[in-house]
Amino acid sequence: MAEEGSGHVRNKQVMFKDYITGFPEESDMYVNTDNTVILKLPEDSNGILLKNLYLSVDPYLRLLMQKFNTSGVFSPFTPNTPLRGYGVAKILESRDSKFKTGDLVWGAVGWEEYTVSTNTEGFFKIEHTDVPLSYYTGILGMPGMTAYSGFFELCSPKKGEYVFVSSASGAVGQLVGQFAKSIGCYVVGSAGSEEKVNLLKNKLGFDEAFNYKEEPDLNVALKRYFPEGIDIYFDNVGGKMLDAVLLNMKFLGRIALCGMVSQYNNLERPEGVHNLISGIFKALRIEGLQVYRYYHLYPNFLEFILPLIHEGKIAYVEDIVEGLESGPAALAGLLRGRNVGKQVIVVARE
Amino acid sequence: MAEEGSGHVRNKQVMFKDYITGFPEESDMYVNTDNTVILKLPEDSNGILLKNLYLSVDPYLRLLMQKFNTSGVFSPFTPNTPLRGYGVAKILESRDSKFKTGDLVWGAVGWEEYTVSTNTEGFFKIEHTDVPLSYYTGILGMPGMTAYSGFFELCSPKKGEYVFVSSASGAVGQLVGQFAKSIGCYVVGSAGSEEKVNLLKNKLGFDEAFNYKEEPDLNVALKRYFPEGIDIYFDNVGGKMLDAVLLNMKFLGRIALCGMVSQYNNLERPEGVHNLISGIFKALRIEGLQVYRYYHLYPNFLEFILPLIHEGKIAYVEDIVEGLESGPAALAGLLRGRNVGKQVIVVARE
Repeated sequence: MAEEGSGHVRNKQVMFKDYITGFPEESDMYVNTDNTVILKLPEDSNGILLKNLYLSVDPYLRLLMQKFNTSGVFSPFTPNTPLRGYGVAKILESRDSKFKTGDLVWGAVGWEEYTVSTNTEGFFKIEHTDVPLSYYTGILGMPGMTAYSGFFELCSPKKGEYVFVSSASGAVGQLVGQFAKSIGCYVVGSAGSEEKVNLLKNKLGFDEAFNYKEEPDLNVALKRYFPEGIDIYFDNVGGKMLDAVLLNMKFLGRIALCGMVSQYNNLERPEGVHNLISGIFKALRIEGLQVYRYYHLYPNFLEFILPLIHEGKIAYVEDIVEGLESGPAALAGLLRGRNVGKQVIVVARE
Repeated sequence: MAEEGSGHVRNKQVMFKDYITGFPEESDMYVNTDNTVILKLPEDSNGILLKNLYLSVDPYLRLLMQKFNTSGVFSPFTPNTPLRGYGVAKILESRDSKFKTGDLVWGAVGWEEYTVSTNTEGFFKIEHTDVPLSYYTGILGMPGMTAYSGFFELCSPKKGEYVFVSSASGAVGQLVGQFAKSIGCYVVGSAGSEEKVNLLKNKLGFDEAFNYKEEPDLNVALKRYFPEGIDIYFDNVGGKMLDAVLLNMKFLGRIALCGMVSQYNNLERPEGVHNLISGIFKALRIEGLQVYRYYHLYPNFLEFILPLIHEGKIAYVEDIVEGLESGPAALAGLLRGRNVGKQVIVVARE
């Protein structure tokens, strides 16, 4: 920690240079080492001062690196200010009676060493520390809640149903697949490399998995794995895969629209989905997921997931890089599918 | 009726010549006057013999005039055999104890003067004859049930919500709009001519209506009529309109996919829908409607709709043509939007 005479300390921050078109490159971002911060809340603040420990690298961050109209649902980032996302942090000072110094929390922080936040409502106190703290960026954080609410609340799953998960080795997909297996579904995942496919089949318990990049015709591939059709599709990618899935859904199937990472780098001209008419023929229910609608279920989720973790009944794969300096490469890499498992950045280990 | 010596009578039938590509023309169909039928059920039949009175002309019929894979939901028609669709008929003979000679029914019949049907399960007995019998092809038949179940069961409407209906003066749309008004929604409809727009505003009680053919940018048009966004979209057309609507939905909006008439004449290359990502941003629920799932609600529907009809509280516009000879032009015209209101063919008036 670079202390300075005035009580300021260095506060390294990850920023992007300008609004992005296409795939972000590592060089579109940088680490600003000139910023400093006083490790004390301003007199008039009623917020919390956080020391950031782990940052969650999520595909949706790409959406905030461009100016585009999402009708006010998301506010884009501002170039040359720190990125913001989910993270795990330690409270250095609190003016909110819900939190005290030393508490560990997860919630929305900056991609920086220290963050002052006044939106304390958005933070969850970490009560269980007998698991790796980094898990609160993934299996025990937003992605875990995404998988849990998306699968159980949106997909109305039943034992014996046929479930397909795209981006299946990612933070959310790997959990959805295992949740589906846990209730007796047949589960197939798609991913973008042989390594990930092996992981899905050999470690994450999927019944089958395939590398979508090796499939010249996704419709044919899906018919191979689902000769009787798909009951539930948990969509993390959108685009061509969603289009092919629509042709292979069973009557009364359900599709959770969780992410469309195949489109995030091309939102000015997103690909068309041509087979929506299958939604009528098959009386499909297609629903978009905003995970924060379900955060009131977080205590239920912990009751469900913590025993599975403690008893070793759920596998969880992380891809951890060290230091804010690794942030630009980690985010650029995630959007090209280079990570294997949940991408996490270590800012500090307490 | 052209009686013949052998007990045969003429049974005129409407047929199509070959599988259709693009818009069907009147000349792609013809009336076969060579067919005859014996007006008596075969000895081994356990079905019903019907004299057809009114035929319902519906956009979905187009889907059955081509060979294409709808995964077994629909079976395509066979060229040079009669078209089949919903109709109102009188029972001439019955081997099913549920029906007796003289009963009036609605259900799936051939586009012909007489039909023998063994699938008696699919027929509804007409108990209320103090309304025009033709209504059982529309407001009191499949289209009525489509509007009722699609709006009330799929769209979860609430008073004060903003509702948009496409193909709004059609058999289904005109009812959806009035159902929405009846519970206090704000309702806007789109249609394809000034005559229809006037009908929507002046007779069918829509708050606003517009001619989509006169709008160079549907997104701009929708923003004009829904500055605060759309809660419920009842989609009868798909394609570009659905795409524009997705950009204008409110958070937690609902879309009933009821029809995609804009695509029915081009299903080999359906248009792409590019804005499905709005489904995620806005946590939309998009659901496809197969009306037969809701036929168990038909008694409830009659209880709801008959008083409205008797008290003059619902308007209903029919476009009635006379004779099977009018069938080819009526169906070709419907698919080009030439009808005004529910398109009905009179086969015989009892």
